[in-house]
Amino acid sequence: MLDWCTSDGKGVPHVSISDRGFQYGDGLFETVAIRNGEPRLWPYHADRLARGCKRLGITMPSETALSAGVIHALTHSDAPATHAVVKIIVSAGVGQRGYGRTIAAAPTTLFRAFPAAPLALESYKEGIDTVICQTRLASDSPTAGLKTLNRLEQVLARSEFADSDVFEGLTMDAAGNIICGTMSNVFCIRDKIISTPSLDRCGVEGVMRRHIIETLQQRGIATSIQPFAAANLEYVDEVFVANSQFGILPVRSCLQMTWAVGETTRQVMSILAANGVAECHL
Amino acid sequence: MLDWCTSDGKGVPHVSISDRGFQYGDGLFETVAIRNGEPRLWPYHADRLARGCKRLGITMPSETALSAGVIHALTHSDAPATHAVVKIIVSAGVGQRGYGRTIAAAPTTLFRAFPAAPLALESYKEGIDTVICQTRLASDSPTAGLKTLNRLEQVLARSEFADSDVFEGLTMDAAGNIICGTMSNVFCIRDKIISTPSLDRCGVEGVMRRHIIETLQQRGIATSIQPFAAANLEYVDEVFVANSQFGILPVRSCLQMTWAVGETTRQVMSILAANGVAECHL
Repeated sequence: MLDWCTSDGKGVPHVSISDRGFQYGDGLFETVAIRNGEPRLWPYHADRLARGCKRLGITMPSETALSAGVIHALTHSDAPATHAVVKIIVSAGVGQRGYGRTIAAAPTTLFRAFPAAPLALESYKEGIDTVICQTRLASDSPTAGLKTLNRLEQVLARSEFADSDVFEGLTMDAAGNIICGTMSNVFCIRDKIISTPSLDRCGVEGVMRRHIIETLQQRGIATSIQPFAAANLEYVDEVFVANSQFGILPVRSCLQMTWAVGETTRQVMSILAANGVAECHL
Repeated sequence: MLDWCTSDGKGVPHVSISDRGFQYGDGLFETVAIRNGEPRLWPYHADRLARGCKRLGITMPSETALSAGVIHALTHSDAPATHAVVKIIVSAGVGQRGYGRTIAAAPTTLFRAFPAAPLALESYKEGIDTVICQTRLASDSPTAGLKTLNRLEQVLARSEFADSDVFEGLTMDAAGNIICGTMSNVFCIRDKIISTPSLDRCGVEGVMRRHIIETLQQRGIATSIQPFAAANLEYVDEVFVANSQFGILPVRSCLQMTWAVGETTRQVMSILAANGVAECHL
């Protein structure tokens, strides 16, 4: 069985130590949900990857290469194509010592399929428990919104609730604004108004976040995108988190704060379920 | 000839794709100047690496392993031990998918020696040309001061002056404070007072910066460590940059601003040269 593979299906367990992805985190990644053999929200993944490549000055792999790589990864894995996740890594490739890209290296593009780990139905029905992480996200990041290989903030935040029943940790910036979960985006609802933190200064713009915003927009439901002070969490009626793999999960607690799974969250989950994000069954 | 090697001298050209260093930049590095067979400022490198390991939750390699790795890297390289640089990488090791360290992986520790690239004497005598980079450093980073494998900011800043005669780029935070060079620390002198930007919110605390501060301190010369607005650059009398490899280099220009190589810079260079940082010959 293959481990990681290239876009032409060649198995590659290793990467050069001189790869700029290893040396500097000089690259990007996507984790694509595969449902019934199809990469879900693929245009959003491709779009974010293209924006990232443009920002970092890395040649974007062709659509053909990306599609082929995803298919190879699935074919050569024991992950069922009905319900899998494919991770795609695009790094700046092998370089010489120093931050500058002194030689025009070909990007390193790698693919691997994993079985998707379905969550308990209970998590969707009753919600998940969260904390607020002590690790703060640096503000005014030049790669805000992108899914780069520089992910130490998420690693540090995630380590805070290892070995606990907490499902997700919410991260703040230095000013005390909620930005993201470690692996998800956050939505809050107050008086039926849906809001989600702006991510222009730090955080990752998740594809499911975008899907939710655009899908609601098409139905005439505006999402307010703005800074969201953590201190205001206690005044909201409902909270949910979203990512490409699990869709939407209601949040039932964050530290001492608790919320019921509310009507608006259920409505958004229904809309997504009808739209093909089938995890959001109710 | 070896490429990279482990602490016991085993040549390893590759690293696992599942290494957390590649996946998330979950690791640290040091670039140690080797002069006459000895690693220069070694205690400072070891100290910064230890602080980084503690912050990231990575097991610090033993002093024995680090020393052995440096020697192996030199022995198996064509870099002359009289004048070389050894890069040490310590990553969190091979992990499973996800930000959390779900298995207690052994750190990946790798070493490689490169020939040092000596600079033209002219650069030391007449100074170098610099720019101020458009890429800003994110503030309030949870890894401020450390030399982690998350180095995209430096990569982006460095790319701004590729293919030019500019030697170094100075980077600012969002507020317009000078923080670092892309590969060096910055010192400014006004009315004989030496100052260097504080690095508690972003930037890398270079070992040569520390050496300069401590060496001057021992001679009763205080270095003012404080935020330094880029707008104040035009009012300073002298500017120099410092790093572990080249020691101290006077800055003769930054964009339209120009400075002479001044008396205080020469004095600091002399002190360092007397202290074994022989590049700072005058």
